[in-house]
Amino acid sequence: MSKDSDKIVFSGMRPTGSPHLGHLAGALRNWLKLQEEYTCYFCIVTWHAFSSEYQNSKSIQQFTFEYAVDWLSIGLDPNKCVMLVQSDIKEHAELFLLLSMTIPLPWLQRVPTFKEMQKTIKGKDLNTFGFLGYPVLQTADIILYKASLVPVGEDQAYHLELAREITRRFNRFYGEIFPEPQMLLTEVPKLAGTDGRKMSNSLGNIIYLKDSAEVIRKKITPMVTDVRRKKRTDPGVPEDCPVFTLHKAFVPREKRDELAKGCLTAGIGCLDCKNVLIEALIELLSPFWDKRREYIKHPDTVRDILQEGNKKAREVAAKTMEEVRRAIGI
Amino acid sequence: MSKDSDKIVFSGMRPTGSPHLGHLAGALRNWLKLQEEYTCYFCIVTWHAFSSEYQNSKSIQQFTFEYAVDWLSIGLDPNKCVMLVQSDIKEHAELFLLLSMTIPLPWLQRVPTFKEMQKTIKGKDLNTFGFLGYPVLQTADIILYKASLVPVGEDQAYHLELAREITRRFNRFYGEIFPEPQMLLTEVPKLAGTDGRKMSNSLGNIIYLKDSAEVIRKKITPMVTDVRRKKRTDPGVPEDCPVFTLHKAFVPREKRDELAKGCLTAGIGCLDCKNVLIEALIELLSPFWDKRREYIKHPDTVRDILQEGNKKAREVAAKTMEEVRRAIGI
Repeated sequence: MSKDSDKIVFSGMRPTGSPHLGHLAGALRNWLKLQEEYTCYFCIVTWHAFSSEYQNSKSIQQFTFEYAVDWLSIGLDPNKCVMLVQSDIKEHAELFLLLSMTIPLPWLQRVPTFKEMQKTIKGKDLNTFGFLGYPVLQTADIILYKASLVPVGEDQAYHLELAREITRRFNRFYGEIFPEPQMLLTEVPKLAGTDGRKMSNSLGNIIYLKDSAEVIRKKITPMVTDVRRKKRTDPGVPEDCPVFTLHKAFVPREKRDELAKGCLTAGIGCLDCKNVLIEALIELLSPFWDKRREYIKHPDTVRDILQEGNKKAREVAAKTMEEVRRAIGI
Repeated sequence: MSKDSDKIVFSGMRPTGSPHLGHLAGALRNWLKLQEEYTCYFCIVTWHAFSSEYQNSKSIQQFTFEYAVDWLSIGLDPNKCVMLVQSDIKEHAELFLLLSMTIPLPWLQRVPTFKEMQKTIKGKDLNTFGFLGYPVLQTADIILYKASLVPVGEDQAYHLELAREITRRFNRFYGEIFPEPQMLLTEVPKLAGTDGRKMSNSLGNIIYLKDSAEVIRKKITPMVTDVRRKKRTDPGVPEDCPVFTLHKAFVPREKRDELAKGCLTAGIGCLDCKNVLIEALIELLSPFWDKRREYIKHPDTVRDILQEGNKKAREVAAKTMEEVRRAIGI
């Protein structure tokens, strides 16, 4: 790979459900650009998935495969980026272990998301040792490839700051082995799910990338809109409409502005407005569905691509860990 | 290896200093018997050493070599047991990571030694995430080889009980993969160091196995005895004499009883009594020193033996982890 920049990007997704519109809007579209500019490692973080799904882990393997399929179908190109599976590269675990030993416990105890996530994710006991160590494993993931850029939304800024702190401490003890990862701030739009609440795996209100045109239509058509629009003739406020969060992510600005005007003036009905979104999604996803069908038909191709990505990643990871071991003296 | 019993033993030592009389009396003598009866894995736990020595880790490698040399010189036989180095078997880290995810944080927070050790080991910041996870790594070490017997002193009973609890939880989630490790209760005599306090690396009051006859004489001769024996004619109480803790570990009972009588009646002087100990140690350690000189002369032999042990261990560990991954679904 020869890119204009020698900077390395790392990012990952947790295979805890099928990829959905949120992944597309908040990450994948950005990754498609990044793979053109940087050396990119895109990682299916199976162990992070296990940290919340440890009582229901049987599906991680299936979702890992689905992630690979969907990444490829959306246009991630194994010739332009490295696609890898975290648990296939044991060095992630080794670096996690070594970092663990150097990290003051209060650094992790004060992470706000640790307690928040426990409240948000219901029905799962996340008050575990491993979940407390989530930011440690995340740091290991990033610095193992000496990545200096991590595309994250603002809500992940704290974690990345912590990763930088962990990296600095390691470098202070053992020498300047790792670059301090920088945040590549990414706009992560908040999409409403089919029930009007935030689109989220745990709420079961998701529109998946693999959903067919028909399914998309069935999911979006009955969605609640701005409550002001009780009748067709009532004007609404697009900013208060859950469906409009999807327009903002997937309908081109010009068309979207026109729809907003129609809403504010009761010039169009909600169903007309939804149909524009539905058609935009179908147009956007049609080539994805075509490719996806092909990959699903040839699972070995997908597995080979992952194997190849893992191999590339493993070589880099092994080299880093050799350096780490030498620096530490183990 | 064909033993009467198919039971598997696991034990380890932290390479944070040179092996000393405490290791001999509390573990190695026992290991020499165990290697005759069971399939034994004796592990130099480098990562556990790192957990307390992370700010001073450069010596771990040297001590690892010394442990191997001393284990061999005292009679551990690579044809009878597997000698391995923890950090050379990445599966320890992988299993540590996976167990981490399943362990309720309070299980570790309530471990009494976590706070105690922080007080005992001065000048080191042990309030780290990794040190909190010490019992998790210990459990991974043991069950990775499906060991069912762990020779430990009473002071380690809590840790082993926790290891059993962690194992049971894992088995409950993913099936009966691991035997619950049992405690093989071992008498671990409390030896006084040269300053009369407990013999301990951190106190610098140690008699090392590698100490020569002359060094042993120089270390033991000036040791404080029972404070009652101010003059040669004052009788003493052996149970209150720091030096007698060494007699109990290294002087045969008959001879020792005779010395005790001499102490209680002021029949012998402290120096006479010490000389008996010194001669007993020299007799005990002379064959060790001879062998040790040979191994030191041939460091590659030692490294080859470790390589061979690591290889055997790795095969077993890899098999276990395959089973674990299949059960978990990653």
